[in-house]
Amino acid sequence: MLSDVDLKAKLKKSAYKEAMEVLDLRLGILQREMKGARIPAIIALEGWQSAGKGKVLNRILQPLDPRGFKVWNIHHSTDLEKMYPRLRRFWLRMPRRGTIGVFNHSWYRLMLDGAIGVNRAPVPPNLLERVQAFEQQLTDYGAVMLKFFLHISREEQADRFEKLEADPTYSWKVGKDERAQQKRYKAYAAEVDHIIGNGHSESAPWHVVPATDWRFATVKIAETIATAFETALSQQPSEKKAVQAPAIVTSSFNPLDAVDLSSNVDDRTYEKQLPKLQRRLRRLQHECYRHRIPVVIAYEGWDAAGKGGNIRRLTRELDPRGYIVHGISAPEGEERDQQYLWRFWRSVPKAGHFAIFDRSWYGRLLVERVEGFATPEEWGRSYEEINAFERELIDDGAVVCKFWIHISAEEQLARFEERRRTAHKKWKITDEDWRNREKWDAYYAATSDMIAQTSTPTAPWTLIPGNHKRFARLTALRTVAKRIAAVIAERK
Amino acid sequence: MLSDVDLKAKLKKSAYKEAMEVLDLRLGILQREMKGARIPAIIALEGWQSAGKGKVLNRILQPLDPRGFKVWNIHHSTDLEKMYPRLRRFWLRMPRRGTIGVFNHSWYRLMLDGAIGVNRAPVPPNLLERVQAFEQQLTDYGAVMLKFFLHISREEQADRFEKLEADPTYSWKVGKDERAQQKRYKAYAAEVDHIIGNGHSESAPWHVVPATDWRFATVKIAETIATAFETALSQQPSEKKAVQAPAIVTSSFNPLDAVDLSSNVDDRTYEKQLPKLQRRLRRLQHECYRHRIPVVIAYEGWDAAGKGGNIRRLTRELDPRGYIVHGISAPEGEERDQQYLWRFWRSVPKAGHFAIFDRSWYGRLLVERVEGFATPEEWGRSYEEINAFERELIDDGAVVCKFWIHISAEEQLARFEERRRTAHKKWKITDEDWRNREKWDAYYAATSDMIAQTSTPTAPWTLIPGNHKRFARLTALRTVAKRIAAVIAERK
Repeated sequence: MLSDVDLKAKLKKSAYKEAMEVLDLRLGILQREMKGARIPAIIALEGWQSAGKGKVLNRILQPLDPRGFKVWNIHHSTDLEKMYPRLRRFWLRMPRRGTIGVFNHSWYRLMLDGAIGVNRAPVPPNLLERVQAFEQQLTDYGAVMLKFFLHISREEQADRFEKLEADPTYSWKVGKDERAQQKRYKAYAAEVDHIIGNGHSESAPWHVVPATDWRFATVKIAETIATAFETALSQQPSEKKAVQAPAIVTSSFNPLDAVDLSSNVDDRTYEKQLPKLQRRLRRLQHECYRHRIPVVIAYEGWDAAGKGGNIRRLTRELDPRGYIVHGISAPEGEERDQQYLWRFWRSVPKAGHFAIFDRSWYGRLLVERVEGFATPEEWGRSYEEINAFERELIDDGAVVCKFWIHISAEEQLARFEERRRTAHKKWKITDEDWRNREKWDAYYAATSDMIAQTSTPTAPWTLIPGNHKRFARLTALRTVAKRIAAVIAERK
Repeated sequence: MLSDVDLKAKLKKSAYKEAMEVLDLRLGILQREMKGARIPAIIALEGWQSAGKGKVLNRILQPLDPRGFKVWNIHHSTDLEKMYPRLRRFWLRMPRRGTIGVFNHSWYRLMLDGAIGVNRAPVPPNLLERVQAFEQQLTDYGAVMLKFFLHISREEQADRFEKLEADPTYSWKVGKDERAQQKRYKAYAAEVDHIIGNGHSESAPWHVVPATDWRFATVKIAETIATAFETALSQQPSEKKAVQAPAIVTSSFNPLDAVDLSSNVDDRTYEKQLPKLQRRLRRLQHECYRHRIPVVIAYEGWDAAGKGGNIRRLTRELDPRGYIVHGISAPEGEERDQQYLWRFWRSVPKAGHFAIFDRSWYGRLLVERVEGFATPEEWGRSYEEINAFERELIDDGAVVCKFWIHISAEEQLARFEERRRTAHKKWKITDEDWRNREKWDAYYAATSDMIAQTSTPTAPWTLIPGNHKRFARLTALRTVAKRIAAVIAERK
């Protein structure tokens, strides 16, 4: 609570110098060790305007290798950022393994500015919980996260504003936002108390720092960071694995068993229905554009289930300026040094657009689980992470469709054989497909778990019988159209 | 010229169907072959509003694997995009090797909208030349580039607008921009003629397509794309290397020889000057922020020349919210599948910010040349490419500083030995450093060529004597301050 803080806290110049000499050395070494241990660190700096964030930050960063940190200034969202889920811009700025991301203002700005009416974007009531889920995912991944609030009194702030305004070089620093904060100091303080009271956690703690004296604040923050880094480094990898994989109770009932693989449609109905549905989806795409509804469609399914052909039928009449198809393969480059979902945050659609995924974030629970590319605690954690990811998209207005195109093992074999025999289809079949086929049972069980744990009322799985491709195509088209139409009806 | 185009060109439905059946097959196969050959393709679609770009594009893309293309809609620049060099947003959207990037409107929009006063951003008079240099770099890299203008008459456009406005689902499509174009049809047409007359090249040709009949336009464009892909695929790699490395005349005079390595500064002067210069740079940083001037600083130099320590002194008093230090190592992930400078376009600073590079795009002319990571025609081409890159930054308002920190071979040896002996410096020295040292002469020659070919009046190289680190630090600080102050003085 802000009222508990002793704003008179002060440090003499000599004590400050002495303390910083040691801290500079410690932080320099710790940065290298964190790099060696590949631990990412996230430091969020909030505080009153003119509390001295810039000055303190500058001093703390001096001993560090500047190639190893990035400072992000979080302003109000731009018009373009408003077209994406709220938290996307923070996800995209997360530090890669071994580096430090410093946020001058942070995701909390959404709430804090909202409390004093500075931010015109509405603040959803569940935003604090969502932010907690966001932080949890990052700390589970191994990030060190520290959050500071630099505190000064209302009178102190008024004094500082006055001084800045008197200096022509700095007078621009006191603007509309600053004045609003001074005027509504109490409301802002109440929101800070609320956030700290409810948004504090052991893995992502809040620290309120008295900042009347910048030397005191500097030493306090540098000390806190150094200690947090030391703690993180001292933990053995085995201790870190405290986050356990949830016990997956593979039910004796596998939802795939219930899929009626004989589902089919006759040629005439197909030829009639297909263009009709395609035109319907095109009209709905326009409606989505007008209502600024983003649409996310994830395709999963067995090799040779017909995902590619299905997507082609789905997009056939769509305006190509409004959709994108992401083919998902193994992560590469920076993607490997970031939390698993980071790369999917990069690909979420803009409001009014469609993003279609040919394989998706569910790879974590399928290929990465079965092939052992992810550890059990990694993929075990992913059930909840993926649910949180999709909830984020939906809370910010998206329609999320998830398709599992199901075929029988016999049908797969027949299709593999045909691909092998047919010259212009040969490129479609690889040794890996045959190897995956041998693990049919493991994939079957993993899929069952995945569906049981990630099918939610707002992001349900649609299991599509795929032995007859035409039936699968109509079903996908129909499902997307129905889901979109329902959301549009709600908006009207 | 638009007036040469037969706007009555038409195709019967049956002829269209027949043609597209063949073209669909051809394009499907060609897309796979282009992927196999790792050739990127860039297709820019311009044309009158309501000329049918969306419809034509949709039809042409139907036979393609949607995972292999991306469609970008180019709108007016957002406020954030205006904070970056004009061409940056196009660079960042370039297709990776083996994929197709389709631009619905393109970089030409900057000029075309400017001609009818729709785009409020000023159009610099040399923009067409700059766009040509941009295209040249991409085609030199191996990209297939095609540019189409869909042409309809003014009357036809008026008719189409009328029809759209009568349909409540589509009436939003006729807005301010559309009406401005209809009203100033002639001015727009004149600019199109100007662009086609001057911006056409063999490697990045313009095609004006009559679009009164959308079937005719569709076949025409699909046919043009297919032919261009076939041509690209039929060229043997050896033929493609038509772009030759420019003959580098290594002058007998090496500018490095002229560096006075005895340059030094006494302790007292250093202790007095350093904080003074640092405070000066901090004030200049504020000025840059106010004047929205981006600053780019590239550090190159021998291993152990003292780049890291120099950068630390330079940034010491800077507001950390306004600068970023990029440590440049080998390219990774998508960076390897893009033109060499693509990754540096990602890192150019926002207006008012500093971007400092610890090693830079000059790696192409140093390590990549000496170690053979780039072919002679690749690095040979880079002199002009790098000059064009820096010219782009400067034309859009940036200050560009380039430092070569020079030390003698003896001084390097002494520093290597010291690092090896000192426990807390050991991490700084690797086997690679010793290996590079053996190639001192090759690097020496490469550096000489680099300086001779890329030192320009607006982006000069500063050769800094580095045997005495303190001298080098003051020189870097002073140079940056002087260059910035000169630009600010111009603006006032």
